[in-house]
Amino acid sequence: MTEALFDPRTVAVVGASGDPAKWGYWLARGALSGASRRPVHLVNARGADVLGHPTHHSLRDLRETPDLVAIATPPHTYEQVVGDALDAGARALVAITAGVVYPGGLPALAERVRSAGARLVGPTSMGVYDSASALALTWGTLTPGPIGVVSQSGSVGLELGYLAAKEGLGLSRFVSVGAAADLGVRELAEAVVAAPHTRVVILYLEDLSIGRDLIALAGGKPVILLTVGGSAAGRRAVTSHTGALATPDAVVDALCRAAGVLRARTPQEAIHIAQACLAVPAPVRRVAVVADSGGQGAIAAELAERLGLEVPAFSPATAEALRALLPPEAGLSNPVDLAGAGEADLATYPKIAELVAPEVDAVVLTGYFASYAADSPALEGAELTAAAHLAETLTTRPCLIHTMRPEGPTVDFLRAAGVPVHGTIDAVMTGLSALTFSREVWTPPAASSTPLGDISGFVALRRTLLASGISFPDGTLYDGGDPGLTYPVVLKALGPAHKTEVGGVVLGVGTPEELHREARRMRDRLGGLPLWVEEQVVSPGVELIVGAHRDPHAGPVVTFGAGGVLAELIADTVTALAPLTHERAKDLIATTRVSRVLNGWRGAPPADVDAVAHAMVVLGGILDARPELTEIEINPLKDGLALDAYAS
Amino acid sequence: MTEALFDPRTVAVVGASGDPAKWGYWLARGALSGASRRPVHLVNARGADVLGHPTHHSLRDLRETPDLVAIATPPHTYEQVVGDALDAGARALVAITAGVVYPGGLPALAERVRSAGARLVGPTSMGVYDSASALALTWGTLTPGPIGVVSQSGSVGLELGYLAAKEGLGLSRFVSVGAAADLGVRELAEAVVAAPHTRVVILYLEDLSIGRDLIALAGGKPVILLTVGGSAAGRRAVTSHTGALATPDAVVDALCRAAGVLRARTPQEAIHIAQACLAVPAPVRRVAVVADSGGQGAIAAELAERLGLEVPAFSPATAEALRALLPPEAGLSNPVDLAGAGEADLATYPKIAELVAPEVDAVVLTGYFASYAADSPALEGAELTAAAHLAETLTTRPCLIHTMRPEGPTVDFLRAAGVPVHGTIDAVMTGLSALTFSREVWTPPAASSTPLGDISGFVALRRTLLASGISFPDGTLYDGGDPGLTYPVVLKALGPAHKTEVGGVVLGVGTPEELHREARRMRDRLGGLPLWVEEQVVSPGVELIVGAHRDPHAGPVVTFGAGGVLAELIADTVTALAPLTHERAKDLIATTRVSRVLNGWRGAPPADVDAVAHAMVVLGGILDARPELTEIEINPLKDGLALDAYAS
Repeated sequence: MTEALFDPRTVAVVGASGDPAKWGYWLARGALSGASRRPVHLVNARGADVLGHPTHHSLRDLRETPDLVAIATPPHTYEQVVGDALDAGARALVAITAGVVYPGGLPALAERVRSAGARLVGPTSMGVYDSASALALTWGTLTPGPIGVVSQSGSVGLELGYLAAKEGLGLSRFVSVGAAADLGVRELAEAVVAAPHTRVVILYLEDLSIGRDLIALAGGKPVILLTVGGSAAGRRAVTSHTGALATPDAVVDALCRAAGVLRARTPQEAIHIAQACLAVPAPVRRVAVVADSGGQGAIAAELAERLGLEVPAFSPATAEALRALLPPEAGLSNPVDLAGAGEADLATYPKIAELVAPEVDAVVLTGYFASYAADSPALEGAELTAAAHLAETLTTRPCLIHTMRPEGPTVDFLRAAGVPVHGTIDAVMTGLSALTFSREVWTPPAASSTPLGDISGFVALRRTLLASGISFPDGTLYDGGDPGLTYPVVLKALGPAHKTEVGGVVLGVGTPEELHREARRMRDRLGGLPLWVEEQVVSPGVELIVGAHRDPHAGPVVTFGAGGVLAELIADTVTALAPLTHERAKDLIATTRVSRVLNGWRGAPPADVDAVAHAMVVLGGILDARPELTEIEINPLKDGLALDAYAS
Repeated sequence: MTEALFDPRTVAVVGASGDPAKWGYWLARGALSGASRRPVHLVNARGADVLGHPTHHSLRDLRETPDLVAIATPPHTYEQVVGDALDAGARALVAITAGVVYPGGLPALAERVRSAGARLVGPTSMGVYDSASALALTWGTLTPGPIGVVSQSGSVGLELGYLAAKEGLGLSRFVSVGAAADLGVRELAEAVVAAPHTRVVILYLEDLSIGRDLIALAGGKPVILLTVGGSAAGRRAVTSHTGALATPDAVVDALCRAAGVLRARTPQEAIHIAQACLAVPAPVRRVAVVADSGGQGAIAAELAERLGLEVPAFSPATAEALRALLPPEAGLSNPVDLAGAGEADLATYPKIAELVAPEVDAVVLTGYFASYAADSPALEGAELTAAAHLAETLTTRPCLIHTMRPEGPTVDFLRAAGVPVHGTIDAVMTGLSALTFSREVWTPPAASSTPLGDISGFVALRRTLLASGISFPDGTLYDGGDPGLTYPVVLKALGPAHKTEVGGVVLGVGTPEELHREARRMRDRLGGLPLWVEEQVVSPGVELIVGAHRDPHAGPVVTFGAGGVLAELIADTVTALAPLTHERAKDLIATTRVSRVLNGWRGAPPADVDAVAHAMVVLGGILDARPELTEIEINPLKDGLALDAYAS
């Protein structure tokens, strides 16, 4: 499939046109741009010349096999055109046309194509592109480069291409998935990732049915995921566009974390992140800012910190070394304010960058450097020399540049040398800050030995979880006698899901008499439900929630977070693929804010982090092992004790 | 001052040079660009021709009064050059040179200038610019336009100019404040705001000593404030650059809210917000997204919601009207997915925009519109017609456009018609989302009748606050007898600020015997401090903090927020200028997350919002009326009761 689709021996364009407002024009123009590499056949029903080239009336008139056929003819022509293409021996079809009319619909179309040994992209595709093979079957003109793009929206894919070109980058392969009658996201993404000239990949996916296959896909090269569905309007749009079920944001995060995939929110952000990925191999946490002016340095440093990067103050030794090189009014910590020293001698830029580099993971220059030659041609030589020093000396610590005029010879040189140059500091820091994330790929742990007892109903579930090492307060079914517990106790009706709302929970029952009275009242209210009585946890500990559920695409996932009033006030949960190890669970807990108060805060009793982690492992393991379950939850978990649990 | 500085009758450039790497070149070049409006004199110590123009050896050689003198000569020349300029009758001086050497320093320089009836910008200024008077005394080339810029960093100011030009905008007036020996931010900003051709203002300030003068300054035109100091590295940079004391982020917000000033974090953001201000007169909350593709619509809608805008689903009537106009695969809610209808007929864009406009405050088009003509010249006529319809019909609801190729005739036409066109959806939504904020200017309420009793020490402070209507738990000084309170009680040592840490607070004292025992122990621990005993509040209510303090620039401010464990987990406070009214205090409380749980959450007892608001009014009033105080705080405030209070 890959060869016929991305480097066909011959190409035919059906519906070729001379009108630039039509797809047939751009397909013909793009196909002809690769005419030195492969024969191109244009098909036009009226047989008119297109772009100065003769056309055929029909694929049937071709005397050569069209290896790849791109189709932009009206919907009702599909049966005929696809039949002709397959009869002629086509191995790959790219269907641009939307609203295709085909007997039996798209499944029948796909079946017809596959049974002939061919594969189909689309329909409603906005084409394919491969810079290495000079294959350009899409609207407009794409620029060659290192970025592979797979998009469930053709327009978003093309926008990524345009934005890349603006930054001096371009695309290796592009494919617009379209309606995916035959080839889907996974197969096409594999082909784009596998291409040797692809160095970083951007996926625009509205539908995450690729699920855990994302992990294998992203194993080799950096992958950036652009997706939507994290807001009400986003979900409405996705459902209307591809009919996809939007995946909750936390589950997308869990999948990305497991796969080492970076997330972007807009095409522009995706390009900035891709550019940073290309320049910066390792995770970045600490940056040095070197600025021409105090203002630009302050803005850059503050933005970096706001986006989660560290801008550490330099060591006294480095500050001293800077003092020796810079004028008295310069800023010697991080950010460095060159205070005119760069302007006075352009060699200052590489010298300072090299000096501060060992203290950080990346160096950012902000201000005028790289724009001198554009403003003052006499400075071109000196600036190119400084740029060459910068590119040579900073091989272990990447350098990224914000310059006021991102154009001209120095910018071109730096970009060619792999040093990203941007026109805004926002672009530099957006890209860098995405890389604080370590691209560590997840492997599921070996199946745990979770005892899998009965979990139908609270009592059985409690017994099973107890056997798995999860603690509950002492409790028993209420039988009208003395429960033999320490007061105060809690009385609960078993059965309804939301017990509090219907008066099915009474807290703070202080004596046996009160217990019997409350039990009578509860049965009067709710009827003959079984009642549960347990010791009340009276500590001021923090309420937590641990749960697991099955996502339609990502499979079983575990969620941990603050419960009670905190859950109402802050979105402070973390979600991860299940099953997970105890260590992984503890790492996840540490990413939440509520973890700060788990280890004893201002004299409060410490919650048991190990107990929380163990609950995550157990619940995730149960959901992983029992496909009939959709969710299981302990809510709240307080001081290491499960105060309530639920499964379905 | 204003006329001589921004529209002088004559200009002299001292230090004029032919070398584009020098300031003297750019000043001479800029001055000469206004030569048709006013005589320009170039001064060069060697008398060499500059840019083909003859020069004078010294200002003393001029036969005409130089109304404005721009100086770029070395530091040690200052005494001579300034003396010559003033002797020659100059009314305004712009001092570019850094590290000026002057007997008596900058104050003496300023005094000398003012005593001659002149005014000075700088030194270390990067110049002044006025597009209306063709005055260009700065580095590089600025583009005329509606944005006024006042900057404490010349480089940031020039960057704003470059970024504005990229968006088809430009500057009305620009002034780089520099070291402000004479003219400071307030006077220069007033001059920039007052210019009739200034329609929106961007201030870059590292030093907010302008304080409450910002309110009067921003009374007439939209003002955007770019400042730093909200992060550790930002504060370090500001201190190193201008020696300024960074104002805390919350106080900056309070000042901006009171002044109706919009905040930006980077120069790029400031330009996007300025562009939105120019196009959008009123606050914007609800936006409609009209997209060429499902993907671009989804990304735009989700970004809008993430940035705090609403993207409401359309009414059934609007959805029906859309259905009648669009193909079956179109998305009919918000976002609208045109699904090819725009491409098929460019008139669709204004038609759909007009249709959805009444349901929202602004319409955003995203996708290909405005790029058709750039790609296919044959479409220029149709696209310009559609653009004209758009500009005409959407006069009450502003329209903003994201297009894939922000260049060409349609983009130029739209921008000239006041419709912002951007190359990224990020730019559109960043600008729009800043305008959710209402530009309502604050006026301080009339002084309250707060009784101003003694507040030295807890007992006196408590008595004064009680008299002002703030409630405390019942309590009394412990005198060894029965306090006559309901148990449990709290025993506190009076004196040390952090009582808990030294064992100066004992909670949950259940009986008189326990009280006497704990009092004895406490005196053993802490010595002979007076002890206070009060009834313990045992409810599960939320702990709040209400405080007021005096900011060196903004004056008295009131802060409200969550206390206790919540304060540790979330930055959930709001700060406002004091004094304030009860209504304003309630509005502020409503902006916090913790306010969601104040009115009784899941059956918890409701906290008294009016009591919290009253405490804010009282504390703010006290700090406003008593200049000797620096801070006053109630922490915690729980269930409307002050559990502790402190003033200094």
